[in-house]
Order: sequence, then C-alpha cells, then structure tokens
Amino acid sequence: MKKIILITGAAGMVGSNLIRKYINQDVQIVGIDSLKLGKLKYIKSFQKKKNFLFFKIDLSKKIKNRKIENILKKNYLHEVWHLAANSDIQNGISDYEVDLKDTFLTTINTLNFINKYLKKNTKFIFSSSSAIYGYAKGSISENYKKKNPISNYGLMKLYSEEYIEHIANKNNLKAYIFRFPNVIGNNLTHGIIYDFIKKISNNKKILNVLGNGNQQKPYSDVLEIIKCMIFIKNKKFLQKINYFNIGTNDKGIKVRDIVNIFLNETNYGTKAIFQKKKQGWEGDVVNYSYSTKKIHKLGFRFKLSSKQVITKIIKNLIKMNIK
Amino acid sequence: MKKIILITGAAGMVGSNLIRKYINQDVQIVGIDSLKLGKLKYIKSFQKKKNFLFFKIDLSKKIKNRKIENILKKNYLHEVWHLAANSDIQNGISDYEVDLKDTFLTTINTLNFINKYLKKNTKFIFSSSSAIYGYAKGSISENYKKKNPISNYGLMKLYSEEYIEHIANKNNLKAYIFRFPNVIGNNLTHGIIYDFIKKISNNKKILNVLGNGNQQKPYSDVLEIIKCMIFIKNKKFLQKINYFNIGTNDKGIKVRDIVNIFLNETNYGTKAIFQKKKQGWEGDVVNYSYSTKKIHKLGFRFKLSSKQVITKIIKNLIKMNIK
Repeated sequence: MKKIILITGAAGMVGSNLIRKYINQDVQIVGIDSLKLGKLKYIKSFQKKKNFLFFKIDLSKKIKNRKIENILKKNYLHEVWHLAANSDIQNGISDYEVDLKDTFLTTINTLNFINKYLKKNTKFIFSSSSAIYGYAKGSISENYKKKNPISNYGLMKLYSEEYIEHIANKNNLKAYIFRFPNVIGNNLTHGIIYDFIKKISNNKKILNVLGNGNQQKPYSDVLEIIKCMIFIKNKKFLQKINYFNIGTNDKGIKVRDIVNIFLNETNYGTKAIFQKKKQGWEGDVVNYSYSTKKIHKLGFRFKLSSKQVITKIIKNLIKMNIK
Repeated sequence: MKKIILITGAAGMVGSNLIRKYINQDVQIVGIDSLKLGKLKYIKSFQKKKNFLFFKIDLSKKIKNRKIENILKKNYLHEVWHLAANSDIQNGISDYEVDLKDTFLTTINTLNFINKYLKKNTKFIFSSSSAIYGYAKGSISENYKKKNPISNYGLMKLYSEEYIEHIANKNNLKAYIFRFPNVIGNNLTHGIIYDFIKKISNNKKILNVLGNGNQQKPYSDVLEIIKCMIFIKNKKFLQKINYFNIGTNDKGIKVRDIVNIFLNETNYGTKAIFQKKKQGWEGDVVNYSYSTKKIHKLGFRFKLSSKQVITKIIKNLIKMNIK
C-alpha cells in the first residue's frame, strides 16, 4: 500500500518541476497529461524511475482508465495536484471551447474520477489564477466578493473552484486552491518570455510586443510557487477548503521593462515595436495586484521580486534556447 | 426581415406550450430540441405552419448549422428562449455528465452560437431553478447570497446563470433569468405525476412513492409560468440582467396529499406505499419556499394554489393518458 501522488498536467511547467520534488520520496507518482501544451521532454528523465508512471490522457473527456483505477483501488490516494488546464489565456479568446474543455471539464472529470477512491482527508491541490478576480481596485484579498473574470480563462478557473468546493463539501476531500500570479521558470509552455524567445529566433531585427508596454503584473518563479504550495499543504489545522493568493509581494514589472531586460540579454540590437492599445490581448488584465498577507501570516514569503524573477528566467532560457 | 423567436427545448413541456403563444403572431419561430426528453408529438401541430421551423440538434455539442445561421443573419434576432436542459433532477445523480452536458453545455453553446447575431437588446430568457439555492432557511429572495445547490442539476443551472451574466455584461443582451418552482402541465416530460401515471398504468394495485411523503413543495401551472415570463419580458425599464423567483405564492403541497388526490381521481383502490427516508432521492430538496415579492411588485400574481394546480393537472392527464 503506497501513498499515491496523482498529478494532472504532469508534463507542464508546474507539473514537471513538482515531480522533481517528489521523485526521490517514498511515494508512487501517477502523472497524467494530454500533451496539448505539456511536453514529453520535460518528464523524460523521470520515466526511468519506478515510482513515476505516466499516462497520456485527455481529461476533457470522461476518464476511463483501468490501470489507474487499479492503482487507486489498491493504494492510498494521498494527494491530487490538479494542474491540467489551458494555461494560455490568449488561446481561449477566439475559441471558447479551449478553456471550457481544458480547464473546466478537466476539473469536473478529474474530481468525478477520483471521487470513489478518496481516503480520509485526501488533499486536492488546484492551480487557480488571479484572473478569477477580473478588474478589481486596490489590493485584492482571498475573500474578495465581486469576482468578475473578463476572460474565458478566468471564468473557467472560477467555475473549477466552485466545483471543487461543491465536491469537497460532500466528500473526504481537503482542498487547497492556490490563485497564481504569472508564473515563469524552466519548462515554460507559454507566456511573454516564451513568445519573445520564439519571435527573436525567427527575427533578430524587430520584436513586436503586444500592447503599449505599460501593462504591469507580478511574476513569480515556479520553484518558489511550488515551495509555497508544499509549505501550505503541510500546515496543520487549516480548514476543509482553503483559498490562497500566492506570489511575489510587489506591484509587478512593466512589459516595457521586461522587453529592456530581454533585449539587453540577447544583445542582438533588436528594435522593440509596441502597439497603441493598452491591452496585450482581449481579456488581458493590464494591471493588478493582490494581497498575499494570508500566506505571510502562515509564515511564507516569496524571496525574489518580479524583476529578479524575470531577469533570472530570461538568463536561464536564453542560455538553453538561443545561445 | 422578420422577428426571430429562437426557442431551445422547443419540444419540452415549457417550450411546446410557449410556441402556442407565438404561433399566430407575426414572427418566425425557430425551435431546437435534442428530443432526449422532448417529444415530437408535442410540436407536431405547429410543424404545418410556415412560421415554425424545427431542428433536431444536440446543443451539448458546439453548434454548427448553416440553415439557422442564414436565418439569423438575414433577420432580426428578437428573443432567445433557452429552455433546453435536463429537467429531471434524478437523471443527474448517477451520471454527473447529464446535467453538465444537457444543462450547462447547452447554455454555453447556445450563447456562443447566437453571440454574433445579437441585435440591440436581444432578449435572452432562461429557465433556471429554485434548486440553485439548495437548503436555505426562510423565504428566499432573488439576491440571497449563500447559494449552495446540493444537486448537479442545481449546480449546472447556477453555472448557466453565471455564464449568461458574463456574456450579457459584454454584449447587447438583455437577460431574464427565471427561477422555476416545480412546474407541471400538459406535455409533461418528467416529475412526480408523470411517474405516477406510468406506474399506475403498469400496476393498479400498488403505488410505490419515493420518500416518506412529507416532502412539501410549491407547484405551478406551466400556462401561468409562461404568462408570467411574457408579462415580465414585456416590462420596460428593467435592468440589463434580471433575476426572478416565479411561481405560486404558497408553502406548497405535501407528496402525501398529491398521492391522495391522484388515487382519488384514478379510483382503482390502489394502495400507496411510502419509504422511510425523508428525501425522495439524493439531491431532493424536501422543503423549500421562496419569495415571489419581486414579481408581485411588478404586478404579477399566480392565481392557482399548489393544490389547485396539482388537482387540475392530475384530472387533465388522467383523462388524456389513462381513461
């Protein structure tokens, strides 16, 4: 009878970095990914290990998998890290089905699949998003009531939260809902730096930037995000359903400054061209800051500022991908 | 250029009775139904009329229909009556996909389908449910905050409401969200009286009743429900998004009393057998009453009491189905 750690979105940025934390522990890791955004190369090194099993499954459809069901039946489902989702907000703009299927339906199917294997206080950890708040003034705390997501992405994260709450209320499920800021790190699958690297690989003369460059958002390092989630998950005496804003405690960094750091590091003499519009894309929340007081009270603080994170990750990724 | 009245769930109880209200007006009715619960025989008489077009479409999948798109392109989309849904709470207990697909996905697909054909203040009318409130004490008003649906049915109605709100906020859509009580009438597709008639047709000696008979709920006549919705839809100066509890203004009728009326009318000397449990089924809200003050203020009152409605419909249906 082993402790099972079930990870959906296992081949994504957060999933693949999380597996590294568990791979040398006395647990059985079951990783699932549709490989729509996740990449096999991010988890290749773990596949040699006995305590990691990988399944390519599209969780947007009702889950039927005898092999996983047998594992869950015979062992102890300790933790479910539900990280599978569309992680690219822009993907869901032209096609509403992207976030519907890859964020909401993956959540509803995952919960209904694990439902009958829940043990006493199985932990369910979910990667939600600051996008559930939409436009909101001031520093947003977790119990902010007027949630009004402006993107399909945010809306489907919000529905997912509500569904988790619905199931947790009826079952042996302890839920940890973490609302992420922008997260970057190794094994990126999307986002501004991912885009910049793609663009500059194709064209070293001009870098077309989405929006006017004044969008300002906090960024956090995926390794700190994972450290924070594990820290909180291990806390005793928390409630049955817990919500946390997690991330760097600063006002963020402007797109304009990210561009400068990036062009400085690549050093090709590239010219950045900005757009006139404020939003980088429809559904872009151009400016937000949320309160991380709740995690501070529990004793966790992010160390790197948004600027430090951006600089670190740009340096790493340029080394790996371009130079 | 005609006024288009689009009705989803056209072959259901509410849909088919609604068509009768519009069929002699100068409008083009486009009816859609998957015929999972709806019945062709309920709309057969309308199909001879030029201003009624029927399409058998499963709205739980992304909608692609050139013929309807052409109609919407060339005419004026005046009203959308979105009545397609799983209407049978019990259906969704063993299979979470029933309400997910037939209630929530039908809503999200319908809204995204009509999105590009919206005209100035196209009206969107939705049949929601008292089940979105779950267990709640006292008389529930429309702005009751602690919604906590206990059934998949209620939860998917609630998500549908939220999605309508999301789309209405971004577009030319005026939304009317009507939270229904139990509704009965001609062209029933489910529910206690529908069940009783089926059961007694098979077995005249014994009538097995779900629950202990003390469940007490308000019932309304589908004709009054439709009258009320049309009355409110035609009111001027309402808001962009409007919520209404609609239905009979009483505390309802006990299952035990429905059984008595039914057995009295059928008059076979049938014996009723009750269960010991309070709930008729998992997800059954055994006792609720909600406030209909908001519609009273606008000038609408339901005339028949729950008991009168039950008696009337039982008499009608027995005449049509058994005797």
